[in-house]
Amino acid sequence: MQKLRISIIGAGNVGYHLANALYKSGHSVLQIYSRNLQTAQNISENLHSEAINSLSLLNPSADLLILCVSDSAIPELVNQINFQPKLIVHTAGSVSIKALNKFENRGVFYPMQTFSKNVSLDFGNIPLCIEADSPENLSDLRLLAQSLSKAVYELSSEKRLQCHLAAVFANNFSNHMFAIAESLMLKNDIPFDILKPIIMETALKVQQVSPLQAQTGPASRNDTATLQKHQSLLDAPDLEKIYSFVSQSILNYKLGAMPEIDIAKNNE
Amino acid sequence: MQKLRISIIGAGNVGYHLANALYKSGHSVLQIYSRNLQTAQNISENLHSEAINSLSLLNPSADLLILCVSDSAIPELVNQINFQPKLIVHTAGSVSIKALNKFENRGVFYPMQTFSKNVSLDFGNIPLCIEADSPENLSDLRLLAQSLSKAVYELSSEKRLQCHLAAVFANNFSNHMFAIAESLMLKNDIPFDILKPIIMETALKVQQVSPLQAQTGPASRNDTATLQKHQSLLDAPDLEKIYSFVSQSILNYKLGAMPEIDIAKNNE
Repeated sequence: MQKLRISIIGAGNVGYHLANALYKSGHSVLQIYSRNLQTAQNISENLHSEAINSLSLLNPSADLLILCVSDSAIPELVNQINFQPKLIVHTAGSVSIKALNKFENRGVFYPMQTFSKNVSLDFGNIPLCIEADSPENLSDLRLLAQSLSKAVYELSSEKRLQCHLAAVFANNFSNHMFAIAESLMLKNDIPFDILKPIIMETALKVQQVSPLQAQTGPASRNDTATLQKHQSLLDAPDLEKIYSFVSQSILNYKLGAMPEIDIAKNNE
Repeated sequence: MQKLRISIIGAGNVGYHLANALYKSGHSVLQIYSRNLQTAQNISENLHSEAINSLSLLNPSADLLILCVSDSAIPELVNQINFQPKLIVHTAGSVSIKALNKFENRGVFYPMQTFSKNVSLDFGNIPLCIEADSPENLSDLRLLAQSLSKAVYELSSEKRLQCHLAAVFANNFSNHMFAIAESLMLKNDIPFDILKPIIMETALKVQQVSPLQAQTGPASRNDTATLQKHQSLLDAPDLEKIYSFVSQSILNYKLGAMPEIDIAKNNE
């Protein structure tokens, strides 16, 4: 594909990983903006890019401007960009494309992954959700996305928000279940290491099998004796509540009371 | 180590995987019991074992009898075994060693993993939690466990129950978060595949980093705008409750209000 000249606004985890992936795929990373110049330089120095800490230094000739900032920072940045970029996109799951209405050529480039600076990632497997204001811009974004990943999806702002909500359950909430498990283990002087293989296996299983079908455990079997034994061990009211609500929800799903959708349909 | 002659009672997922792992490690699988003879035969035929469907056929000369049955089935089985085995163990996380008090030589052999018959597992990485009524029996179980896995832990019945409860959060509850995510995706006609890489990454991250430190997302940042946007999308009261309680709990953990333990201590 055509190699693009791309500037990245924001040098956090998404900016870091995206800039590196773009560079590796042969695109030019023209400029990297951060309020803190050193933060931008930490990324730019390996990518032959220019680090900048003022939006007035943005080069308007870039083919694409990518906003890699937190959801809440987008309006202010939009306000401060006072030229018409060839194309500008944001990378936020829960922000509508409308946030960029000020610009003639706009889109969204949302990578569905959790990023940490010190954890390297194979971008080729990261689902990229794209949206644009016109078929031409969508086509350009699709080509760019395909140059980075084999998993490219076109999603409207409404669907992207639903997807972001689902990801909160799949990532943030499951991680919190791991955190609760860790706290219970450490409180009882048992190494958290004992749970690491079962955590891996839980994630591996749903790569192949629907999580609804993969569900096991006392709630799923409605094993009230074990449920009560567990409840009596939880001395924190917050954990008791989570234990009982999640257990009830597991049973509801098992009984088909929820969700109002046909999982089998998806596997046709 | 010494190769043992072992009989397995129960031909479910645990029995299947344990019998195969014992055989591969050079032990003899003497007999496999199931109420359904065919189920026992499905396992025994590859392991040069005898399949039986009556407890009266159990060979008392076995070095070890392993009960691989559901928690609730243990008392009835104990009742029906009318000889003194050289050593007998159960494999249940939430059942005390006292359930085997009728026997002179008893213990527990609890593999911390989720088993499915059609998913092959490397037993060498599965944490095995052992307990016994005497130092001699504990030593024998430790040698056996070490012949199967490099992760062997001695846990009392009380600690094992705590560990089992923690595993419910780490495995059953995280899987339910995946199931809720799946239901939200399918309800909105978005492929669940989009979430599979982030699910893998979530599990991978906590192999290295404490889940408390790995926590991200709107609840963790107390991003009330996004939290409200998400809440308004959830039309099922059960999911709303889970969303708000888990979000609140994430924030509590972040603020150190819970748990009352020092995570840093564990990483010393």
